[in-house]
Amino acid sequence: MSKDSQTVSLADAVGRVLAAAVIATSDVPSFDRTQVDGLAVRATDTFGASDSLPAILTYCGEVHMGADAQLVIAPGQCAYVPTGGMIPSGADAMVMIEYVEILDSQTRLVSQRVSPGQSITQKGDDTTIGQIILPAGRIITSTDIGALAALGLATIKVLPLLRIGYLSTGDELVDVQTHASLATGQIWDVNRPMLAAAIQSAGQIGIDYGIVTDQLEPMTARLRQALDSCDLVLLSGGSSAGTHDFVAQAIQNAGSPGVLFHGLAVKPGKPTMAGLCDGHIAIGLPGHPVAAWFMFEQLVKPLISHLTGRESACPASVLARLTCRLPSNHGRAEFVSVRLVADFANDQTQVTSPQWLATPLPMRSGLITQLTASDGYILVARDCEGLEAGTVVTVTLMAK
Amino acid sequence: MSKDSQTVSLADAVGRVLAAAVIATSDVPSFDRTQVDGLAVRATDTFGASDSLPAILTYCGEVHMGADAQLVIAPGQCAYVPTGGMIPSGADAMVMIEYVEILDSQTRLVSQRVSPGQSITQKGDDTTIGQIILPAGRIITSTDIGALAALGLATIKVLPLLRIGYLSTGDELVDVQTHASLATGQIWDVNRPMLAAAIQSAGQIGIDYGIVTDQLEPMTARLRQALDSCDLVLLSGGSSAGTHDFVAQAIQNAGSPGVLFHGLAVKPGKPTMAGLCDGHIAIGLPGHPVAAWFMFEQLVKPLISHLTGRESACPASVLARLTCRLPSNHGRAEFVSVRLVADFANDQTQVTSPQWLATPLPMRSGLITQLTASDGYILVARDCEGLEAGTVVTVTLMAK
Repeated sequence: MSKDSQTVSLADAVGRVLAAAVIATSDVPSFDRTQVDGLAVRATDTFGASDSLPAILTYCGEVHMGADAQLVIAPGQCAYVPTGGMIPSGADAMVMIEYVEILDSQTRLVSQRVSPGQSITQKGDDTTIGQIILPAGRIITSTDIGALAALGLATIKVLPLLRIGYLSTGDELVDVQTHASLATGQIWDVNRPMLAAAIQSAGQIGIDYGIVTDQLEPMTARLRQALDSCDLVLLSGGSSAGTHDFVAQAIQNAGSPGVLFHGLAVKPGKPTMAGLCDGHIAIGLPGHPVAAWFMFEQLVKPLISHLTGRESACPASVLARLTCRLPSNHGRAEFVSVRLVADFANDQTQVTSPQWLATPLPMRSGLITQLTASDGYILVARDCEGLEAGTVVTVTLMAK
Repeated sequence: MSKDSQTVSLADAVGRVLAAAVIATSDVPSFDRTQVDGLAVRATDTFGASDSLPAILTYCGEVHMGADAQLVIAPGQCAYVPTGGMIPSGADAMVMIEYVEILDSQTRLVSQRVSPGQSITQKGDDTTIGQIILPAGRIITSTDIGALAALGLATIKVLPLLRIGYLSTGDELVDVQTHASLATGQIWDVNRPMLAAAIQSAGQIGIDYGIVTDQLEPMTARLRQALDSCDLVLLSGGSSAGTHDFVAQAIQNAGSPGVLFHGLAVKPGKPTMAGLCDGHIAIGLPGHPVAAWFMFEQLVKPLISHLTGRESACPASVLARLTCRLPSNHGRAEFVSVRLVADFANDQTQVTSPQWLATPLPMRSGLITQLTASDGYILVARDCEGLEAGTVVTVTLMAK
């Protein structure tokens, strides 16, 4: 469990977090380049040039792609440069090939007047030496990879991934990977596979600590084992009586200072708890899968961002109009899953109007299949007295 | 290059595309479960029960977590069931433990009147046999993994990933992985590392075919080699004169029917082309990295969605107000990168008002570093005569 940065190649860097700011060690481009095919000229030589009165310039050769220009353009001279080629010394503008006529092997007629700098990407236009290209904490994107490659960087320092342990508690739970069927009264363990996928989607390393029986000793032992080799451990409480107390007690026993909070005024997610055990973090998630998922979204994901040093992203959300009334949520902030459909009755040319209709989905605690039918969710504030049909709400989109 | 579906374990399924609809083969839950700790009762036995006049019920035992209830509740009887436990036969409602008083080992006082079905999750409430859980083409999310686990599925059939080849053309290009420095007139190859990252971010398999010289024969040979083992090949044209013709000619030579289109009325991205070579697709992207990136976003990503059978996702975008005027774009649809800042002057309680200010970034063709400073981009329509400062625009967010 190292906090040291790692060096990875560009091919492995996308999605990782930059360990330190990247500072340009060279100008990009490193030489003046033409943006067009044509003649490199001195702009003053073209002043007054037109179709009817072209400037007459002496042709002194060609610049080759990927090579030093070598030529020097004196007053009255010009040279051919292909797009992306190096501007020869003395020249300060490009005339597009469409405005050039070949009079003879030594002479070119130029019918376009150009200004100094025209059609030239100057040395350092993209990046100058010493410029901060990317800040520390940046989640590396494909465009960042491009910017790093433009500087000639083949490797980059990134922060280590988090090791996130996860385990389920509950005597009624059966592992889908190891069992083919359920006995009466048993249910499949949903939270471990779901959390494994959520951890993977968040780009971190998940470590499975299995299903633990609803007893304090085994739970404490398994938690300690997980905390020893992980930065963060997620326990999802079985829904059986007393389980939450066992989880809280296990966190309390596993290290100091122990439980930080137990219970949140949110729905679903009330029995959520968190603890700090000798510098390692334990999160007790609800046993109900839907509640566990929302608490992963709202609590664990921001924690991952914080622990991995990421900058926070703009939330992906849309505005939508509720299709029906939502009742009061009785003193707890409530996450309400919705299905979105395009609002064709709405004037689609009015960009300030919501383009979507949001229909709340019935979401009885723990019914995970219904959550898969959601396009997103709204957060109804704790003190909200209910929302009327037609209310415009912000819908946080679920990853698809 | 197989189009057959693959079977993967749940642990490897997130982000993959479902090959066929998943249909429930069992009810979830598979038995009636209690949502609370308390007593399983016959609801009729509690009618009229209150604090002052509790119902007196005969206690006949306890249901254990994960086990068959075994008990049968006759009129006037009750049994303890922990949250998530199985409702015993005969019982049709739960009384929360808070409303129960123990009179003696055989007798319980119940001070709450409950209705039939109260606090019970019925068999099949989440999912019933035969129900379509997830549609074919679905990109599997963490909640989907939860729903699959809830059905006891340990593996799932997914569509194969695309094999996407990529190569760069241009004599001025140097590979960051193999060279430590540039000679004068050379530039680093930005597009290959950037496209590799973009392909990886899109969840597909990228295969590197290197840098090819600006000559027709080698280019055609390399393209044929790539097409032979890929579903899709991306060529990014060097910016040197004539390169685009070589790429178009190579696509034309590589198979039938050859080039489908060459040139798009977009900025940046004009020299984009596409071809079909004996059933394999070749896309000629611009050499300028910024243009190549936008064309990957706008052309290649939707193509990937189509070829992988994915359903399309809601676009991640925000509404924003332009901070300055944008001039006309002269007959080409234009992608304009913007930086977003929160609009604190705006009334944040008015949810229909844009919460963001969008400042267009100067984006000279090919300057990739500037693109990394963008939060998103707007698409200015081809026939737009310019946008005034203050205009509300839809900003497509860039992946962070």
